[in-house]
Amino acid sequence: MKLAKINLAEIFSKLPSDDYCVRVIAMMNNYEIKIVKRKGESIWHKHSDTDETFIILEGKMQMNLRDKVIELNPGEMIVVPKGVEHKPASKEGYKAILIEPSGVPNTGDVVDNKITIKQAEWI
Amino acid sequence: MKLAKINLAEIFSKLPSDDYCVRVIAMMNNYEIKIVKRKGESIWHKHSDTDETFIILEGKMQMNLRDKVIELNPGEMIVVPKGVEHKPASKEGYKAILIEPSGVPNTGDVVDNKITIKQAEWI
Repeated sequence: MKLAKINLAEIFSKLPSDDYCVRVIAMMNNYEIKIVKRKGESIWHKHSDTDETFIILEGKMQMNLRDKVIELNPGEMIVVPKGVEHKPASKEGYKAILIEPSGVPNTGDVVDNKITIKQAEWI
Repeated sequence: MKLAKINLAEIFSKLPSDDYCVRVIAMMNNYEIKIVKRKGESIWHKHSDTDETFIILEGKMQMNLRDKVIELNPGEMIVVPKGVEHKPASKEGYKAILIEPSGVPNTGDVVDNKITIKQAEWI
């Protein structure tokens, strides 16, 4: 990986217009730093082996948990602990940075959903 | 750690007025997510065992490397690879998110500098 800065707005502008896009933008040790653009609902899932960090850059995300909903706005972040069921959703759409170890499927323990991505592509 | 969102502006507002402040705000597995507020120069150092991620939120940071200087603005990030000497600096000051494994000293292999912090405090 080239030692260079990454401009987040610039790299988001390269994404296709799809409602759901996730791309790897950098590695930190064995962790992937990804950008995600999302409009709509994910599915309930959990990651049994890892925590997952979301840093919201634009829009709003509703992080559904089994006992509450946490609404995240730009400049807010959350670490979803391993084993905790969650369902990110957004009517208006959001852009976020996502950090987790390399090779974690986006739908966690639900491996055969139509939105499952086992390994995100690089941008 | 409580499962709750973190509002970055709110948590930065709790820092003292010092030119250099670093605090742990969350853990992701064995990684610390920290906030750093900095005005002035760090020292040349490297982290022999880990990469280090900076995400700039406010101000400007000059990331000095031995062969170039990379200026980082809000909405820009960089991963400094392990073993690479660097010296963050900022005349005007910057606020950033810093991500690295737990217990990494801020001055890397230079362990006895007056600015060395072996383990950042939580906020």
